Amino acid sequence: MGKLYVIGMGPGGIEHMTIKAKKAIEDSEVIIGYTKYIDLITPLIQGKEVFSTGMKGEIPRCKKALELSREKKVAIISTGDAGIYGMAGLILQMKNDEVVEIIPGVTASSAAASIVGAPLMHDNCNISLSDLLTPYDLIKKRVELATQGDFIISLYNPKSKSRPNNLSEVLNIVRKYRDGKTPVAVVKNALRDGQETYIFTLDDFDDSVVDMLSIVIIGNSQSYIKDNIFITPRGYEKKEEFNL
Amino acid sequence: MGKLYVIGMGPGGIEHMTIKAKKAIEDSEVIIGYTKYIDLITPLIQGKEVFSTGMKGEIPRCKKALELSREKKVAIISTGDAGIYGMAGLILQMKNDEVVEIIPGVTASSAAASIVGAPLMHDNCNISLSDLLTPYDLIKKRVELATQGDFIISLYNPKSKSRPNNLSEVLNIVRKYRDGKTPVAVVKNALRDGQETYIFTLDDFDDSVVDMLSIVIIGNSQSYIKDNIFITPRGYEKKEEFNL
Repeated sequence: MGKLYVIGMGPGGIEHMTIKAKKAIEDSEVIIGYTKYIDLITPLIQGKEVFSTGMKGEIPRCKKALELSREKKVAIISTGDAGIYGMAGLILQMKNDEVVEIIPGVTASSAAASIVGAPLMHDNCNISLSDLLTPYDLIKKRVELATQGDFIISLYNPKSKSRPNNLSEVLNIVRKYRDGKTPVAVVKNALRDGQETYIFTLDDFDDSVVDMLSIVIIGNSQSYIKDNIFITPRGYEKKEEFNL
Repeated sequence: MGKLYVIGMGPGGIEHMTIKAKKAIEDSEVIIGYTKYIDLITPLIQGKEVFSTGMKGEIPRCKKALELSREKKVAIISTGDAGIYGMAGLILQMKNDEVVEIIPGVTASSAAASIVGAPLMHDNCNISLSDLLTPYDLIKKRVELATQGDFIISLYNPKSKSRPNNLSEVLNIVRKYRDGKTPVAVVKNALRDGQETYIFTLDDFDDSVVDMLSIVIIGNSQSYIKDNIFITPRGYEKKEEFNL
């Protein structure tokens, strides 16, 4: 009797995976994922059957995973949380009577936030700037509404070669409502090899450091920078009372 | 030389903690947290010094953690992700020259989502209905803007004795813009003892099952229920092509 684990491996390094995710990978006979993610967990998958495919191969990958899971224990892996822009959705859309378990992980915005400070301490949203399956007008409308609502905004997939200017257009929408001193962080390869971190303000934001693997976090009206740490207070009271 | 680990322990059970979070707890001499959360990790903290305080004791807890971390290795724990409505913000606001490391975890909306299906597969936001530190008018405005922007909405702290009607008021705001068939999930005690799950639509939503420990997830315009699983597609194309 087979089973399919849909695993969010967290930001990438094995130590930021949950204990349950690690056990499920160890328990699986077959590992399926995007080549680059498979490489991150090499020590865990020695001797296992591996199917890796390129970036655009999601649907064949899911089909293969479901097929094989009828007979074998199979793990299909995403970075971050499998349920946020990961593989959980496609698998459940395509599933018939296969046995599927979703194992959540640390999503990319949480990983990025932990490196720059505590930017996500109040109401926050995740917006992907990828316009492959979402109209760009809807993405821009969403950014505008999120800014008006004073949400902290985490941008996933902020930039690619096919849309080099969308990020700066989106930042211009934010500038209509939010102060120029609002902190903006860029984290590339959060908590894995090649990590890079930048803390800007809206006024001096430089989007040339951003690539597809970055997360961009824009603070709310209360966010501030203290000793190069990006902090959003947990509320809107005038002053927190720390001297008890 | 001491150190302070600010740890997001994930939904609660030890297996949903990251390997890094578990190691940091094991490495710590002192464990600080809300009594109920400390109880969840009893097997990890035998023989360690423990300071636990009630729900409202956040500021004294942070002060104690920072003080002790000058000499000792200290872990202050939150459920979920320490950086999303957790302890990371207060610690960094109050910190002087203490050494602090934030260790991210699986946030409550990811944990709840993994149980009901894949509701968070597109742009999504987290909104806390707690009005202790946030004006209720701003919370309602935020819900309205998020609904207009077709965000999937995860509600944290959806209900308490002091505000029994806010959740139903907020759902009425959502109903102004979103179809009555939109899925709404309630997950109580996600991935820990006492887990309960309910899948409703906006039309038949029953808020009597919701308490302070629940997460409520409201789908976007594309979300649907299939075999009692809550799915949001990854995009807005008319039809995903699964028959390759």
